[in-house]
Amino acid sequence: MAVGQDQLPALLPVPGVRLGTVSAGIKTAGRKDLVLIEVAPGTTAAAVFTRNAFCAAPVTVAREHLEYGDYSPRYLLVNTGNANAGTGEPGIAAARDCSSAVAEIAGVESRAVLPFSTGVIGEPLPVDLIRKAIPAAFDALAAGGWEQAAEGILTTDTRPKGLSVNFSVDGVEYVITGIAKGAGMIRPDMATMLAYLATDVAVEQPLLQQLLAELVETSFHRVTVDGDTSTNDACVLLATGAAGNAPLADRDSPLYRALRDAIEEVCLTLAQALVRDGEGASKFVAVEINGGRDQQECLDVAFTIAHSPLVKTALFASDPNWGRLLAAIGRAGLVDLDVDRVGVYLNEVLIAENGCRAESYTEEQGVAAMAPEDITIRIELQRGDGQATVWTTDFSYDYVRINAEYRT
Amino acid sequence: MAVGQDQLPALLPVPGVRLGTVSAGIKTAGRKDLVLIEVAPGTTAAAVFTRNAFCAAPVTVAREHLEYGDYSPRYLLVNTGNANAGTGEPGIAAARDCSSAVAEIAGVESRAVLPFSTGVIGEPLPVDLIRKAIPAAFDALAAGGWEQAAEGILTTDTRPKGLSVNFSVDGVEYVITGIAKGAGMIRPDMATMLAYLATDVAVEQPLLQQLLAELVETSFHRVTVDGDTSTNDACVLLATGAAGNAPLADRDSPLYRALRDAIEEVCLTLAQALVRDGEGASKFVAVEINGGRDQQECLDVAFTIAHSPLVKTALFASDPNWGRLLAAIGRAGLVDLDVDRVGVYLNEVLIAENGCRAESYTEEQGVAAMAPEDITIRIELQRGDGQATVWTTDFSYDYVRINAEYRT
Repeated sequence: MAVGQDQLPALLPVPGVRLGTVSAGIKTAGRKDLVLIEVAPGTTAAAVFTRNAFCAAPVTVAREHLEYGDYSPRYLLVNTGNANAGTGEPGIAAARDCSSAVAEIAGVESRAVLPFSTGVIGEPLPVDLIRKAIPAAFDALAAGGWEQAAEGILTTDTRPKGLSVNFSVDGVEYVITGIAKGAGMIRPDMATMLAYLATDVAVEQPLLQQLLAELVETSFHRVTVDGDTSTNDACVLLATGAAGNAPLADRDSPLYRALRDAIEEVCLTLAQALVRDGEGASKFVAVEINGGRDQQECLDVAFTIAHSPLVKTALFASDPNWGRLLAAIGRAGLVDLDVDRVGVYLNEVLIAENGCRAESYTEEQGVAAMAPEDITIRIELQRGDGQATVWTTDFSYDYVRINAEYRT
Repeated sequence: MAVGQDQLPALLPVPGVRLGTVSAGIKTAGRKDLVLIEVAPGTTAAAVFTRNAFCAAPVTVAREHLEYGDYSPRYLLVNTGNANAGTGEPGIAAARDCSSAVAEIAGVESRAVLPFSTGVIGEPLPVDLIRKAIPAAFDALAAGGWEQAAEGILTTDTRPKGLSVNFSVDGVEYVITGIAKGAGMIRPDMATMLAYLATDVAVEQPLLQQLLAELVETSFHRVTVDGDTSTNDACVLLATGAAGNAPLADRDSPLYRALRDAIEEVCLTLAQALVRDGEGASKFVAVEINGGRDQQECLDVAFTIAHSPLVKTALFASDPNWGRLLAAIGRAGLVDLDVDRVGVYLNEVLIAENGCRAESYTEEQGVAAMAPEDITIRIELQRGDGQATVWTTDFSYDYVRINAEYRT
């Protein structure tokens, strides 16, 4: 199950980027499970990784290679079907081994290759299968390889996720294309989520890193399916510089602002696409909190609602159970909360105020508000100017089925 | 579904306590849904209530009555089928009204009556039905009414929960009996949980309150089904003094120590009974964390594991998915966690160490360890002397069904 339309938009090539997707036979024979991304020399990279203390081996190695390679990688190698997490020292060696295999063929240093893995935790990475498939991945490299790559990075996802945005500044055309995967173990601090974005705009690395960190904060860090933080998350932004502009170094230019807007659109679309394809999802729910003392307490309330199993099962049932919303708000830890000032809305329908059901509210309004696949839960705290929105899904039978059966 | 044996042990009368259970027709016609508890004059009471900011009307009124009544109530009135929560000012008036109805018949002041409610949130309390049934509840008062009361306070519970402990000190026999209800919206900070304990030992109120707070901390505050905190939780400990001892005022007596041990046994048994009857539960899981820097970080790890939907669905599938355990430990927020020192055990089987699967571990061992209904997940952090254990359940199809269908 998934929410909303299932249509991957056309993904535009990004000058300086080629992608090759092949089948290494890691999980299911014939399934595309290995993606090689090549970027032009001089590309700068920014990246955000999982904050889970048990981070996977490829995360450790990719971080190292980025740093020692001066944030200018040449290749990214992504496998699905095996997360290479919970694999200890042998896992680190396996991630290095895969990087070396790419480096040998390309004639670059190992540190110019960033490894990524997603899939089952705790199984040894089948390095031999990956090594054997790498030459074919090189052969498959093509500028138009984004759609295939969007397919090739999926695990329990039911559909590929991607977006391209074209924009022009002073008559020059630029492009950004991004793809992402992830459906469960999704929450802020990154998720079982991989996202790769590339633009032809030249950007100096420190600014690129700031920009990515800032935009991840309001997109990928604002979505949650089940509150679990994965061991493998990574979001990488590549700036090839193929457009030939003077590399951006600060925020004071029309090109920077246009680029920022375009990346923001791609990040937000991809982040919301993860939620729409959340495991077992039948609803796409925006939880919008207004009027908190600060943004943090709005986030506290939003995530308490978004993670409440009682709220999520009520959403699955299309049940306007505002009592569970009040209960979730009440346990979010807000200091001196005056419950009589709190207003609760489903879409535009006021359902609770003054600590109880609104007088104007009818059950028919609530049922109508819960009927669509896309729902907004809006809470007005009326105690300040803070604001935050997060996006989440319901909890369905399918969520349990998918996660109970995943390893069997 | 529920875990373990379904047998309410014989509940012993407590001198100074009578209970009457009747049907007021609040939810289902004919179902017992109203319990009146009478205690002898001079009884002292201690109570712990929900910390949810949206606390229910009866919680507000019971707190007031306890305080203004000098912690010496004469009656407790408990209804199920309606939580009288999210009902605003009219809800407060309704709770007061029910107390007055009891007070009038008994010839006591209203503040000597404590109201409690559990059930659906947000519906007006049917005060008329309750008032009409109160005389019958008085008629039903009996010292042997504990078993019926244990039935009468249930909502989505599948079975009654209670325990009596007899103990003797210096040749004198004493008794404590307790009953509890709760199956969902269960987590620390109390739950959709009501618990009533009574002893014939005389105890001064300040000591009684300290004792209850201390024992709730290591029993009811250590269980979680779904992480949701209810609006109605209450745990009340009544000391009738019918045994005739000099009221206990400090901790330095054999009687105090014997009483403490007995209450601890009752609290722990009732708390674990809530989990065993957790909504949709097919497993009873102790999460035991050893070797943390302090108790708090052990609790942080324990609750992160206990609340993880991915861990809970794996438990439902009897899947020894240690990768999800590592991922949960890794996101619990521990500072400077050395993941290579962490040991993960299922019952007595070491399944992961050094950040990966233990060499000695076989999948057969894991499957065998997951087979029983009762499972212990033990984590050895090896960084201090902290220790904490919490108890929880799995996430099943039935959990979703029960909570998706609850209002329909």
